[in-house]
Amino acid sequence: MDNQQLLGLIGRMTLEEKIAQLVQLAAPFYEGVDDEGQITGPMQAMGITDSMIASSGSVLGYAGAAGAIAVQEAHMKKNPHGIPLLFMADIVHGFRTIFPVPLAIGCSWNAELAQKSAEIAAREAAVSGIHVTFAPMVDLVRDPRWGRVMESTGEDPYLNSLFARAFVRGFQGEDLKEETERVAACVKHFAAYGASEAGRDYNTVDLSERQMREYYLPAYKAALEEGCEMVMTSFNTIDGIPASANEKLMRSLLREEWGFDGVLISDWGAVKELIPHGAAEDEREAAYRAIRAGVDIEMMTACYVHELPELVRGGRVDEALVDEAVLRILRLKDKLGLFDNPNRGASPEREAEIVFSREHREAAYELAAQSTVLLKNDGVLPLKPDAKVALIGPFARSGDILGPWSWDGSTEDAVKLDAALAERLGPGNPAVAEGCGIEEGTEEQLREALNAAAAADVIVLALGEASEMSGEAGCRTDIRLPQVQLDLVARIAELGKPTAAVLFNGRPLDLHGMYDRVDAVVEAWFPGSEGGAAVADILIGAVNPSARLTMSFPHSVGQVPVYYNHFNTGRPQGAPDAQVRYVSQYLDAPNEPLLPFGFGLSYTTFEYDGLKLSSDKMTPDSPIAISVNVTNTGSRAGTETVQLYVRDIAGDVVRPVRELKGFVKLDLAPGESGTAVFTLNEEQLRYHHSDLSFKSDPGRFDVFVGRSSADTLNGSFTLI
Amino acid sequence: MDNQQLLGLIGRMTLEEKIAQLVQLAAPFYEGVDDEGQITGPMQAMGITDSMIASSGSVLGYAGAAGAIAVQEAHMKKNPHGIPLLFMADIVHGFRTIFPVPLAIGCSWNAELAQKSAEIAAREAAVSGIHVTFAPMVDLVRDPRWGRVMESTGEDPYLNSLFARAFVRGFQGEDLKEETERVAACVKHFAAYGASEAGRDYNTVDLSERQMREYYLPAYKAALEEGCEMVMTSFNTIDGIPASANEKLMRSLLREEWGFDGVLISDWGAVKELIPHGAAEDEREAAYRAIRAGVDIEMMTACYVHELPELVRGGRVDEALVDEAVLRILRLKDKLGLFDNPNRGASPEREAEIVFSREHREAAYELAAQSTVLLKNDGVLPLKPDAKVALIGPFARSGDILGPWSWDGSTEDAVKLDAALAERLGPGNPAVAEGCGIEEGTEEQLREALNAAAAADVIVLALGEASEMSGEAGCRTDIRLPQVQLDLVARIAELGKPTAAVLFNGRPLDLHGMYDRVDAVVEAWFPGSEGGAAVADILIGAVNPSARLTMSFPHSVGQVPVYYNHFNTGRPQGAPDAQVRYVSQYLDAPNEPLLPFGFGLSYTTFEYDGLKLSSDKMTPDSPIAISVNVTNTGSRAGTETVQLYVRDIAGDVVRPVRELKGFVKLDLAPGESGTAVFTLNEEQLRYHHSDLSFKSDPGRFDVFVGRSSADTLNGSFTLI
Repeated sequence: MDNQQLLGLIGRMTLEEKIAQLVQLAAPFYEGVDDEGQITGPMQAMGITDSMIASSGSVLGYAGAAGAIAVQEAHMKKNPHGIPLLFMADIVHGFRTIFPVPLAIGCSWNAELAQKSAEIAAREAAVSGIHVTFAPMVDLVRDPRWGRVMESTGEDPYLNSLFARAFVRGFQGEDLKEETERVAACVKHFAAYGASEAGRDYNTVDLSERQMREYYLPAYKAALEEGCEMVMTSFNTIDGIPASANEKLMRSLLREEWGFDGVLISDWGAVKELIPHGAAEDEREAAYRAIRAGVDIEMMTACYVHELPELVRGGRVDEALVDEAVLRILRLKDKLGLFDNPNRGASPEREAEIVFSREHREAAYELAAQSTVLLKNDGVLPLKPDAKVALIGPFARSGDILGPWSWDGSTEDAVKLDAALAERLGPGNPAVAEGCGIEEGTEEQLREALNAAAAADVIVLALGEASEMSGEAGCRTDIRLPQVQLDLVARIAELGKPTAAVLFNGRPLDLHGMYDRVDAVVEAWFPGSEGGAAVADILIGAVNPSARLTMSFPHSVGQVPVYYNHFNTGRPQGAPDAQVRYVSQYLDAPNEPLLPFGFGLSYTTFEYDGLKLSSDKMTPDSPIAISVNVTNTGSRAGTETVQLYVRDIAGDVVRPVRELKGFVKLDLAPGESGTAVFTLNEEQLRYHHSDLSFKSDPGRFDVFVGRSSADTLNGSFTLI
Repeated sequence: MDNQQLLGLIGRMTLEEKIAQLVQLAAPFYEGVDDEGQITGPMQAMGITDSMIASSGSVLGYAGAAGAIAVQEAHMKKNPHGIPLLFMADIVHGFRTIFPVPLAIGCSWNAELAQKSAEIAAREAAVSGIHVTFAPMVDLVRDPRWGRVMESTGEDPYLNSLFARAFVRGFQGEDLKEETERVAACVKHFAAYGASEAGRDYNTVDLSERQMREYYLPAYKAALEEGCEMVMTSFNTIDGIPASANEKLMRSLLREEWGFDGVLISDWGAVKELIPHGAAEDEREAAYRAIRAGVDIEMMTACYVHELPELVRGGRVDEALVDEAVLRILRLKDKLGLFDNPNRGASPEREAEIVFSREHREAAYELAAQSTVLLKNDGVLPLKPDAKVALIGPFARSGDILGPWSWDGSTEDAVKLDAALAERLGPGNPAVAEGCGIEEGTEEQLREALNAAAAADVIVLALGEASEMSGEAGCRTDIRLPQVQLDLVARIAELGKPTAAVLFNGRPLDLHGMYDRVDAVVEAWFPGSEGGAAVADILIGAVNPSARLTMSFPHSVGQVPVYYNHFNTGRPQGAPDAQVRYVSQYLDAPNEPLLPFGFGLSYTTFEYDGLKLSSDKMTPDSPIAISVNVTNTGSRAGTETVQLYVRDIAGDVVRPVRELKGFVKLDLAPGESGTAVFTLNEEQLRYHHSDLSFKSDPGRFDVFVGRSSADTLNGSFTLI
């Protein structure tokens, strides 16, 4: 339908019918009318009437083609204007085929695979009746206490933006009308949710506007530039105003400055939550502030349907605000092809055919293999071919490796590490014992594990966090492994045998009590449906690890936030004339994280030399080329992620000590050399000045090229 | 001299002479010319010439009347215009008579005693030749990792402002020309230094402007409203620009909006530190940015004297900027009476007479007694009169109880706890043993302590942090007691005897491993010269503790920042319809601190009843009266600090769950009742809106009156 047709449709709708388009309810509401037509359960509690349901705009969380078709067909019979429902769901890192959690995907530094993961998720979701996914989540994160760091690709605005674009391309493709392939994307959580104070979920965010624009906003903007159809508000306040009531953020910045004309949806319950926030005294004020801020869809609360009719009739809210919200929603339905085919891609046949298909699982395997980070290796990995292996730990046999936000995934179908290793090692290998549970253990479990370990040549510990220890509302003040697992590590370490640890978890951990007691550490994150296979192949060396951290691992929670692109301060540690005490440091810990951004080992080694800049002067019209030679000096083929960082020596505002500006992946055979070439131009040196203008300044810049943010060759140039 | 005379003097000065007024160097520079007139040492390294010294404006850190007089007299002979030097020093919590650290003073909730402490410090400093003190420090603090929290009065803007005013009144009095009584005050660190990221000193600060104005700026403003003569820049960046180069903060806000016309001084080295900050490429740019921002005095670096002459002559810096800085400095010298008497109050005779006098020490005792917070008491305190006491711990005999910033104090003269207890208990009592050092111990120390403990009826543990573990650059990621002391506590606890712990420290600690193993905890902070006496009197019950925390004690560093006046969030814990998981909380710790703001026990008990509001409606013209009855229900006389908090239910921006609006101290005999009466008016309900306007909103407010921020009776009213 064209705009005129949509406006015509809106013109035929009553005020109540229009407002009902703005409500989003969960699937049970669509089953809330009993046989006698009586409203029951959650509908009743929320004051939702059957006519609201009949005119409602979207539904949350449905999955399964047959069910979706049934609900849509029933709805089409009831809806007075033949307007189909939008089906939305959280398809965050796969639908039924679960990919590694986004923080792991970030560590792949592979946007193509990230895009592919979103394509597959979109395909599986589309044929299952989903139209919109609440993804990608692109919140920049610096605090590992926060459980939702696992949903983000990490602490860097450049990488986050790259992945934001890749996910949006993957979900949406070129045309949303490819109805069995694509879903609309909804970038979230706008804005700066990742800066939740004290790493506690839903907590206050306070930043300067410049800080927000420079570090937190770029990834959302990148998603929108890629055509992302929807935006979700965040739960937090921004400068004292909850995102869902924040006119400055939503109307002035998102709509007017950025020109976003798609659908803005609140997060779950966030409109009514304006009341506990203290931004509204009651539902009426909550509805008033949200619609004025530009929130089109109210998710899971009923302030709009209860209060907007009277707010409009009383003249406090211009009906045009309602009409524009409805138009945006109807336009999205039209783009998705729903007016032509309300059931769109939903197809039980195709669902049975492609969901969790071999091809999809192979992609999940590939991404897991490229997302697994080798954090330490004193020679114990890869496992020697004939070694007798004891696989010990609560994750040895566990299917809890999908991670949070994998509603439609099946832990039963996940490839477990014990099975994958058994397939790859000789008969009777590995010996397997849990040793303990995730947070508790028994003496018997421990004894069994120690026996298995005593009989083995090499021990693989499978440790980590249960998936509910991260994710939404999964925040921890203590980010070490649970004590029972640390005790297990200590007891195993006493055996003095070669020991490698594999970690399954959703956040950077404080590795105290583990890192120093084992010979190798593999960070598998929550690797998804094929996790066990990918990890096993890394353990045996069939895959050479290539992933790199995109979020720093602190020494301890007392260092948080610790991130690579910090400012230098006026009294940096180690400056030539630094006094011993009076510099910016802790008395009891280093400033640097244990493992920095960009860090990750390989089974081979790489050497860097010959850093060259094509000129020591840059002008706006003459970019410089930066190149470096990299040689695989080990005995295995490997992939090296060569990273380019820049530092602006002095600015109108202070600039980070390093900022990632690009990376190149080199696949090198043993002994092979390659050259990584980067082009750097003036545009990449722009930043938000004190007056919020976005531009570069002439002056000196340092250039760093290397294998992590902390291991580089250095050069410099001047921007003229 | 009047303004015309000062301008006339400036008119006679060369550009270089004027610029030299803007430099501040430490005392050794004034001894930097050797017998042959050759420049040596630090002067040479810094490029300071003898003529710069001759024309320089101020000196840092001199103390002692005779020395100050000698330096001033030598200077007056050399200075071409007869302009005396200003002598400045850090007199933070006493000069020679050391008062408790400011965080402890805050806990007294006694502004009169705080003022008296500043009066005494000013008197001792003035007769010793000091003209200006770099105090008060009024930075709002929320992060106990930061070592400088001990310099602040805590986390509340209302209390911090109250103390800021008290300190300024105490230092400056009515007339700075009272030359043996007063020094000029310099409020610091402007601005928001207390928000240093990750609790690491000198680190980045980033806040919204509204947050800064609402919480961080009020105490500086209060000091200036009280007439504070000087302001010191902070080390940190504010919105990306170091304070010492921050035109928006210094020129627009401080000078123009607030009308501050006094002297603005950089912190130590902070102008040159613009270079490592990345706000200036070299000293010239550093000088340029600092003078433009309005920094009058450059402390301890030489960017001004090296670069300003050419910047002025080349036309980049208007000479008027230099002239106005010089005028402000000369005006302060005039206010202090230095043109009439360059030696001002400096008097070796009076110095000998009043410094560390009995009267001054009594005031220090009184403040220490009122600053010591009883954190826990399961009946072991006060000590029974005839009990055999073992005093054990690294602070049992220690004089390291003055705390940081007590340069002129003497740990030898400090009253130690062992001596004070011995004076008060019977002969041979207490038995004393260290048990361990502060961070290390020996088996022998431990054995000796266990023997002493075994022979005692009751054990007093004297534990804590060395003074250098807090203060400037004294930051810790682990805020527990050092492990050796926790081990000592554990071993003592095994004896199962009544045990009280006294803490000497400069920050809120994570009390894990201590709090639950003892029967009583006394927070003595660094109590100053008379600390041992005050603590001993509290232990034996001669003084009934009345102090209340002004900074929250977290459960662990993983909760940081945790403070009482936080926002509610949209998903507060414990809300009536809160889901179990999806609320703002940690999986492994409470949201609340272990010990909240306003908390502190007494040896007696108080009951509250009859909270009354004179009306449930307030208008701008009709304040309401709030009263509550308090009864001493115990068997000892005691002082109760009755606290009034308010919550604005909904605002343009969200408002804290509680905000302190006032307090009343009631001295009550056993069985006695009293009434605390507060008046609350519309002006006290104003806050910074999203457009930064400062006003109140009509609507509902909750009122809380009680003995801490977490233990109150509740009422409510409506502002019309």
